[in-house]
Amino acid sequence: MTRTAITLTTDFGSADHLVGTMKGVILNINPDIEIVDITHSVLPYDLLDGALAIGQAYKYFPPRTVHVVVVDPGVGTDRRPLLVSAGTQYFVAPDNGVLSMIYAQEESVTVRHVSAEHYFLQPMSTTFHGRDVFAPVAGWLSKNWQTQSFGEEVTDFVRFALPKPKPAGSGVKGVVLRADNFGNLLTNFSAEDLPQVLAGSKFKMRVGNAEISKFAQTFGNGAPNEPMLILGSSGFFEIAVNRGNAAKLLGANRGAEVTVEFA
Amino acid sequence: MTRTAITLTTDFGSADHLVGTMKGVILNINPDIEIVDITHSVLPYDLLDGALAIGQAYKYFPPRTVHVVVVDPGVGTDRRPLLVSAGTQYFVAPDNGVLSMIYAQEESVTVRHVSAEHYFLQPMSTTFHGRDVFAPVAGWLSKNWQTQSFGEEVTDFVRFALPKPKPAGSGVKGVVLRADNFGNLLTNFSAEDLPQVLAGSKFKMRVGNAEISKFAQTFGNGAPNEPMLILGSSGFFEIAVNRGNAAKLLGANRGAEVTVEFA
Amino acid sequence: MTRTAITLTTDFGSADHLVGTMKGVILNINPDIEIVDITHSVLPYDLLDGALAIGQAYKYFPPRTVHVVVVDPGVGTDRRPLLVSAGTQYFVAPDNGVLSMIYAQEESVTVRHVSAEHYFLQPMSTTFHGRDVFAPVAGWLSKNWQTQSFGEEVTDFVRFALPKPKPAGSGVKGVVLRADNFGNLLTNFSAEDLPQVLAGSKFKMRVGNAEISKFAQTFGNGAPNEPMLILGSSGFFEIAVNRGNAAKLLGANRGAEVTVEFA
Repeated sequence: MTRTAITLTTDFGSADHLVGTMKGVILNINPDIEIVDITHSVLPYDLLDGALAIGQAYKYFPPRTVHVVVVDPGVGTDRRPLLVSAGTQYFVAPDNGVLSMIYAQEESVTVRHVSAEHYFLQPMSTTFHGRDVFAPVAGWLSKNWQTQSFGEEVTDFVRFALPKPKPAGSGVKGVVLRADNFGNLLTNFSAEDLPQVLAGSKFKMRVGNAEISKFAQTFGNGAPNEPMLILGSSGFFEIAVNRGNAAKLLGANRGAEVTVEFA
Repeated sequence: MTRTAITLTTDFGSADHLVGTMKGVILNINPDIEIVDITHSVLPYDLLDGALAIGQAYKYFPPRTVHVVVVDPGVGTDRRPLLVSAGTQYFVAPDNGVLSMIYAQEESVTVRHVSAEHYFLQPMSTTFHGRDVFAPVAGWLSKNWQTQSFGEEVTDFVRFALPKPKPAGSGVKGVVLRADNFGNLLTNFSAEDLPQVLAGSKFKMRVGNAEISKFAQTFGNGAPNEPMLILGSSGFFEIAVNRGNAAKLLGANRGAEVTVEFA
Repeated sequence: MTRTAITLTTDFGSADHLVGTMKGVILNINPDIEIVDITHSVLPYDLLDGALAIGQAYKYFPPRTVHVVVVDPGVGTDRRPLLVSAGTQYFVAPDNGVLSMIYAQEESVTVRHVSAEHYFLQPMSTTFHGRDVFAPVAGWLSKNWQTQSFGEEVTDFVRFALPKPKPAGSGVKGVVLRADNFGNLLTNFSAEDLPQVLAGSKFKMRVGNAEISKFAQTFGNGAPNEPMLILGSSGFFEIAVNRGNAAKLLGANRGAEVTVEFA
């Protein structure tokens, strides 16, 4: 038997006991599981940011990994807990769209409303379902693998589309999805959105007051303080500065408008 | 044999090599153990904050988990290292009160002064007993489970009480124990301290300049920018704002005074 | 068979999916490995800071641990990926000097240029070799232990020396290498550099505007707001304040000049 893994993606931060407590709950159910943190620094309550985090990471995990995603501003209300089978993997999350990138990328998706409360911790709090609902469901799933025992299949689950670039004037308008630890600005332009850039056409990209006209293969090709466009490792274009911080240099961050024009 | 776990709770932060080094020491002794972080963001030197972190998390871990708690401003002085058996679990920590919430919650507690120096790393530093004392003691305990081999039982260990709410004028006065990642303000009012709130009585709570009169089941029941009282997942009342940050909105944090009056 | 471990040291931070994704890649290759974080808060692009992090931690890990170190401003350029056997352990890192402290501390070092691209993830990005090169190489090494299958031995690898204290006027001049989570200032003065301090000679150390003349065994020996010199747990002298933050009190940080004079 191969050891399987449970991953955790939350907006809980790592300064509190919350994530550790969830791990205790999981180990108390399945002491042989490996638990892996994706990140706990999803922007608080930000479903798109959570969707991006798990959406960029999950494909790299082994088959039968159980991904727990808790960005859950509606905890304790009537939003449903879900158990999703998608491709070779499993996802446990609230029904608020935080799994939208999974739904978009996987062809075979089965979504269940987790209603089997005997899997939950009792007494159940109204404010910490990471501990009382999602962690134990993941723990039990990693032991019995009986998805149908958790609840009925549903089709009316919440999903949203990633914001898509749109025509604007003579160009295209997109948005910064995230600034990473280096200050690289992840845009919502995918390789398919800007084939001209990959083909070598001249372009002007505007973010804040900056204008970018250089496309480079990697960070090391840039001059100091020169913002440039890179095709990032997740398939989206990124604005980066060699050994610098594009977010600071350009004064741009999540939500900033990005426009592209071609000559 | 079920795999067991060692947890780590420290004020070391995660930007340095310290926590990783402790894990190396543990794995070098017991390569089959699972190591789980509770948090490394206990406020530096803050024993109450450390006591709260481990006190809220430990019960969710499996029997025979070994919890290492290193908030240790007296490292290298004559404060004693302790090995505590409490309920079904074990704790390794300096004798400075950081285990006070364990002592308060567990009926069966045996406290030992760890004096068997052959378990320690040599040469032993004066400033990093997390690496040289607490990690190796936890590692060896997880292999031999012979608590009596680590040292003699003691009864004069250091403990402190959590600050309790006190009568003040016509009401009760408490304190903010901690602000979490969402800005929720954990107070020292427990469910038993304010039964009137749970019974539906009208109340006025004051924190900083804000006045709170709404009690809600969960975060989602609040209006934007409306501070409200919640019974949190650890059994203490919390002040929260739906999709907002109460700590920022109210300008309050650890140590802020909280008063409650009933009509 | 004893379970082995892979450690990760990067400048990726923990707010993004990057570290989690690397762990997925590793577990997909070797699901039985234990993965341990040293730190992901190496200062961005800072090779000396990365070298210090792994250099202070690796010795405490079990034999056959594989240490992955990704501080890699030249990702995607022609800098080589390396696999290093040093003492009883293994290191996977870019050839940019980030392993310099390993080279300096270990007598038996074999350095290989990892050229066996069938171990890499395909398609390979130009910007995330942590995921596409270093993680899979570590994963496969932890399964087959055939270092020679990864590439040829090289001797022209990049290395740098830790900055050494130098004579300056009637004294010695050093530098602050790092401020830790408590604000303790790690200097580049080792025990051998300042034997007079350990022998009890009077000294004057200057950092910023502060003058330090007290040497203490441990933090608890200091008065409030009194900066003092400590021989730290890594063998370097540190400037610390009992229950305080020397970096803030002295207004000093990485790169600050430190001078010592003896009477």
